[in-house]
This record gives sequence, structure tokens and C-alpha cells, in this order.
Amino acid sequence: MQALICSVGTEILLGNIVDTNSQYIASHLKEMGIDVYKMVTVGDNFDRLYKVLSEANGLYDYIFLTGGLGPTADDITKEVVVKVCGKENELVVDADSMKALEEYFEKKDRAIKINKKQAIFPKSATILKNPKGTAPGCIIESKSKFILLPGPPHEMTYMFDNELQLVKDSIIKTVTAKTALLGEWDMASRVDLTGSNPTISPYATDYGCILRITAKAETEKDADKLLEEGKKKVKEALAKYLITFEDKRKEEILIDLLRKKNETLASAESITGGLIASSIIDIPGASDVIHESYITYSNETKNKLLNVSYETIEKYDVVSRQVLKEMLDGLYEKSKANLCIATTGYAHLGHVFVGILYNGKYLLKEFQFNGDRNRVRLRAKNRAIDLSIIFIRGDYEENLDF
Amino acid sequence: MQALICSVGTEILLGNIVDTNSQYIASHLKEMGIDVYKMVTVGDNFDRLYKVLSEANGLYDYIFLTGGLGPTADDITKEVVVKVCGKENELVVDADSMKALEEYFEKKDRAIKINKKQAIFPKSATILKNPKGTAPGCIIESKSKFILLPGPPHEMTYMFDNELQLVKDSIIKTVTAKTALLGEWDMASRVDLTGSNPTISPYATDYGCILRITAKAETEKDADKLLEEGKKKVKEALAKYLITFEDKRKEEILIDLLRKKNETLASAESITGGLIASSIIDIPGASDVIHESYITYSNETKNKLLNVSYETIEKYDVVSRQVLKEMLDGLYEKSKANLCIATTGYAHLGHVFVGILYNGKYLLKEFQFNGDRNRVRLRAKNRAIDLSIIFIRGDYEENLDF
Repeated sequence: MQALICSVGTEILLGNIVDTNSQYIASHLKEMGIDVYKMVTVGDNFDRLYKVLSEANGLYDYIFLTGGLGPTADDITKEVVVKVCGKENELVVDADSMKALEEYFEKKDRAIKINKKQAIFPKSATILKNPKGTAPGCIIESKSKFILLPGPPHEMTYMFDNELQLVKDSIIKTVTAKTALLGEWDMASRVDLTGSNPTISPYATDYGCILRITAKAETEKDADKLLEEGKKKVKEALAKYLITFEDKRKEEILIDLLRKKNETLASAESITGGLIASSIIDIPGASDVIHESYITYSNETKNKLLNVSYETIEKYDVVSRQVLKEMLDGLYEKSKANLCIATTGYAHLGHVFVGILYNGKYLLKEFQFNGDRNRVRLRAKNRAIDLSIIFIRGDYEENLDF
Repeated sequence: MQALICSVGTEILLGNIVDTNSQYIASHLKEMGIDVYKMVTVGDNFDRLYKVLSEANGLYDYIFLTGGLGPTADDITKEVVVKVCGKENELVVDADSMKALEEYFEKKDRAIKINKKQAIFPKSATILKNPKGTAPGCIIESKSKFILLPGPPHEMTYMFDNELQLVKDSIIKTVTAKTALLGEWDMASRVDLTGSNPTISPYATDYGCILRITAKAETEKDADKLLEEGKKKVKEALAKYLITFEDKRKEEILIDLLRKKNETLASAESITGGLIASSIIDIPGASDVIHESYITYSNETKNKLLNVSYETIEKYDVVSRQVLKEMLDGLYEKSKANLCIATTGYAHLGHVFVGILYNGKYLLKEFQFNGDRNRVRLRAKNRAIDLSIIFIRGDYEENLDF
């Protein structure tokens, strides 16, 4: 099985955005045993896209397209594929897609007019629903199988993962290990990545580093068995740095841990400025464990809201272990939360303190991060969640190396 | 002037890495007035790369290649280009490159033998030095001008910036309009997007919708003039929905507005759970205007921290205009901030109230958003920032339609 991945968008050719969709699709096709032979990016230009696709039609089993499914005149992907496949006379309005559009725009009647073309497909096409946006995808069969996916990455990945059923000549199963505290290189160097089935691949994500284990077999049972081998290997290699194999974000794991114990959390955030609370509130059911948090971005508000003393700030600096501890104490006084999390730091220097006070026990850590302001804040948030999970589970030891 | 960008590397087709080189080259070519017509990624396969390059030779002024210049057998880019250009009989060892290789390995005590092929070039080639690694680049002229650059991004960008002198035949300038409150379709439908110079293109980003205006001319002055025409057109079409043409995030515009007046802001966040404060604290210098904020994610904490009355919650529901107003009042009592921002809503229903209290004046808005929990929260945050800017500027009118 061979595939071409084609991204459509002048904004990519102009260098305005990096095409991450192709990498996402490629990495998943690899796991399915489909070989990507080429990737190509074309602008929003009918003739050039037509040339690429008409030449490719029949050369590959699958032609994946991302982008150009929007409502405006320069969104041309579907129109070009229809012409390449000679299905101009088969176009119909897909009732389900039209209904979804109508529901989407219920209160915004002006918009539906220009969006209507998003509901038009060749009648033989398989529609791929898009609950994340207005552009449905579709599969159009010709000499190759054209798979049209939307450009916005969150829409594309959702559709790819949930709506697309590709022919599989074998069972592929994957599981992802979320890890705590380790950087990508550090994580990867602890695990033997050389096996071919299951494969184990490291990835850095905005939520921390992960290892994806992929097993391929003729039966589901055999795939499961291989997956278990991979999980065992990863578990032994990562030990206490392993957060979970479950398909959950680590914030969800933290919420689960607290909910089970009927406990709560609160944060007092300076450098992270609400990122920690926000990442937890991102998870459905967060209200079971988080009720309040404080953003204290000045010396005065650290004093006013958390009772941090000016003497401590003066003597040790506001970015210090001592201020961090007083922030935790003040937060506990206010919130009585079982898990109190606090941060203070200098984003431009990458110098950050992350502290935890969990049922009377403190954990105060100092970090030096690289990267821009935004990366530093994100890493501080990730470390806070990681440390919380490891500390609550009783897995924290002073000699953990990260 | 037209260009093809071709990245060579099986690791890209496998989805192991994202190709950021193409985006880097594309964005710089745009500024030089060179149009990128296509991007293509091919694996480390002689025949397939040969086919792509021999078909492209003569179709473009420039063919940029990245990757495949290493010392091993699967590094084939230079060999393929030499064959495509018919220069197999012109190969010589470049003395400077050989010397550089010898010096490089002196210190690192590694065998130079396998690297020697990196010093071999057609004698007519222009060598591009690589002080960051072992693979020199080169320019090989045929019907197209082939520009071979190394794959590792830090080597490629250094070489591109420092070793490469390309002809510039026109000036390209772009400017981006950030807009408030409007969705992509709504924004796009208000502006005439049909012009070809300047071009105006709509994009949806996580920070809201934008329009990019791009002008091309022979002189900088002419490009500036075209850009001004585009800006005038966008300004007239968007009127009060236009936030700025400056290269700034809208949070930065909000901070600028407040800083000029020596004013402050604070947020009381339920559904957004810290996103508003966090997006503001993302901007360097945010500490001038934001000192504190509150995350009140339960009825109890809305009462405890913001003095929202249980009667109001009971009578109108916690997601209501009345609770929103009391949140704003409580936040002002605590913070005395000039701009108080509050949110309450049901993420899973997309039902959100966003409120502003600015120097005694209230603005309470109700929204119905689509998308998942995360998108709903992000949109609520963006609306809060948009409304704040428009309200502070005095541009808010009841009949604004969004």
C-alpha cells in the first residue's frame, strides 16, 4: 500500500505556517503499514493542484489531501478532485452535511450562504463528519482513493482518528506512555527503541514527552500480546517516570488521583499566571477537585492574597524557595485544599520554582529551563502536574534525576 | 522568479520529524520576491528523487534541496543532482572543502574516510561553506539553478542566511490585520478578497481571525504604497472590528491601551479558568497592568472570593447575566482594577457569559459557541480580550453584529 500526502494552501508556500498535518498523517500511516512515497505542497491554485493530482491519480493507493475545504472561493481542493475524478455531473447536496451546517450556523444566518458549498459532494463519495468545524471531509474513489481532510490541525487529527476507516490487511494497535519530568532525549535514552514489532517511538508534545508503542499482527489477540510486551519494556525502563498508558492527559490522571481520595487542589500562580488551573479546568469533571485558584503576579498581591511577607521577598528575592513556601502556606490557609501548587520565576531567564504542599508535606523544586517565555511557562506547568502526580502516588524520591 | 523546495529524507516520510526547513526557506524567499510554486518531500531513494528533479529541471528558476548531503550511502542528493545536470564527468575534490573536513575531524578524532565524498563537487559548482557541520552545500547550474543545503535545521539556516546570495527582482511586503469578534467566514465576507496586488487573505488562528495583505513591487516605496491601499480597504471594510495592523498579539494591544492610561486589569474566571490571565501574562511587560486574578470554579468560591450571593445563583443559575455582574462587582471590590473581566459558562454546552466592568461601565454579553470544551474556552477568552479592547477604545456599540 502506497500513499501520497498533499497539503493545499498558499499560506504554507509563503512560509507563514509549518505543515504539521503531513507529519501526523505520515506517522499514523506508518503504523498502519501504508508507505508514504511522497509529500507535496501546492498553493490554492486550481491548475497547479489539478496537474499534481491528475498525474498522481493511479500511481498511489491513497492520496491524502489536507486543506482547501473552507467556504471561500480560494478553497478549491474538493472541486479539483471532483474534476480529476470526472465526477462533475454527480454533485449533490449531502443532506446530513447541510443539516450539520444549518445547526452550526443556526443563529448566524448570513454565514450559511457562503458555507453551503461545504455540503456539496459527488453522490458516490463517503462523507467524513467534522464535529470540530464546518468543513466535512470525504473519500472519493477513482484510480486512487482520494481522502480529503480539513486544514486546521485540530479538525484534521480528530477526523483522521475518528472518522476514517482505512483498509487494513493486518491489525495495528498502539498505546501511548505519558512520562513525567524527563526531556525527550533523556526519556529516549532510557528505553531500547530498536525493536521492530512492537515499535517504540519517542515524541515531544506540549503536554510533555510520550512514547508510542505500536504492534502489528494478524489477530487482535496477537497484537494485544505484542503490545503488552512493549508496555512491560517501557514500564521497566521508565519506572517512576511513567505516568500512564491510559489515553488520558496527565491533568486527567491528577484529577482521577484526587477524586478517588475525595481530595481537592488549588494553585497560586505567579510565572504560570493561570496555566496550571486552566490546564486542569480543561478536563471535564475538573469541578470535582478544583474550586479556586489565585494569580498573584506582583509582590503586593502575593502579600495581600497569600500573606507572603515583604521581609521574605526583600531578603530572598520574590523568585526564591522561601517565597514559594510562603505562597504555599498562604494558599493552604485560603483554600484548605489537600494539594496546593505554587509557582514563581523569571520567564525571560528560564529560572523557575515549582512547589507542592500535599496534606502537610512540602516539595520545593528549582528549575532552569531553556526556550522562550511561552515555552518556559509551559514547562513550569508540566513540571507542576508531573511532580503532583508522582508526589501523590508516593513515587517521589530525592534521587530522581531530571 | 519561481522556486521549488524539495526536502530529501525518509525520516520525514515516516513522520518521525516535521520538515521546518521548507517553511524557513519559503518565508525568506517570499521576502526576496521569489515565488514558491511547490514543495515536495522525497525519501532517500535515488530513482524517485531523480524523477522529481529531472521533471522539475527547467520548470523553475530555483530548485532548493535540503537534506541528503551526509557522508553515508543513503545520502544521495548531490549524486542525483549531478546526474540530472549531466555533470558526472566533471567531479573533482574541492580543496577548501577537503581542508575544512580535515580540520573538522582533527579535533573530533573520527575517521575522515567515509566523509570524503562530502568534498566532491562538479568543478563548475559554487561551494557553500558549512561552519556548523561537515556537509558543505553548493549551487549547481543547469536549466534550473539547484541549491543544495544540508538537512539539520541549524546548519541549513546558517548557510541560507550567511552563504547564499540570491538575486532579488522585486520587493514583497506583508502586513497582518487582527480582527475582533468576527469568525473567519464573517470576516472574509465583509472584505473584497479578489485583488491580485495587494492580495488579501483570511486566516483563522488560535488568537482570532486575521487578514494578511501582501504587496509586490519593484521598489520598497511602491510596495509600501500598495500596502497602504490594502490597509485602507481592510480598514474601511472592518471598521470597528479591526484591532490592529501592528505585529502584535491582541493581548499586547490591550496591555498597551491600559499602560498608556496607567490603568490595571484583573480577571475573575470560571469557565475560562485562568486562560484570560494566562494569555495576558504571556506578554512581556504584563506585570505593568495585571497584578492579580481569581479562578472561581464553584458556587462556594464565587461567594467566598467574589461575594456573589447564593440567592442570585439559586434564582438565575450560576451561568447567568446576574451572576456575571456580581462577579464583576466582587472582583472590583477586591482588586480595584480599572478593567475587570469575568466569565461564567457551561463549556460542554458552549453557553458562555463574558463581562467587563471598565471604570464604572458594564458590558455583559452572552455567547453560544460551537466546538469542544477546549475551543469553547479559547473562544470565550478571545471574546473577552476583543470586547475589552473595543470597549476601552470607545468603539463598542449595541448594534455591533457578531
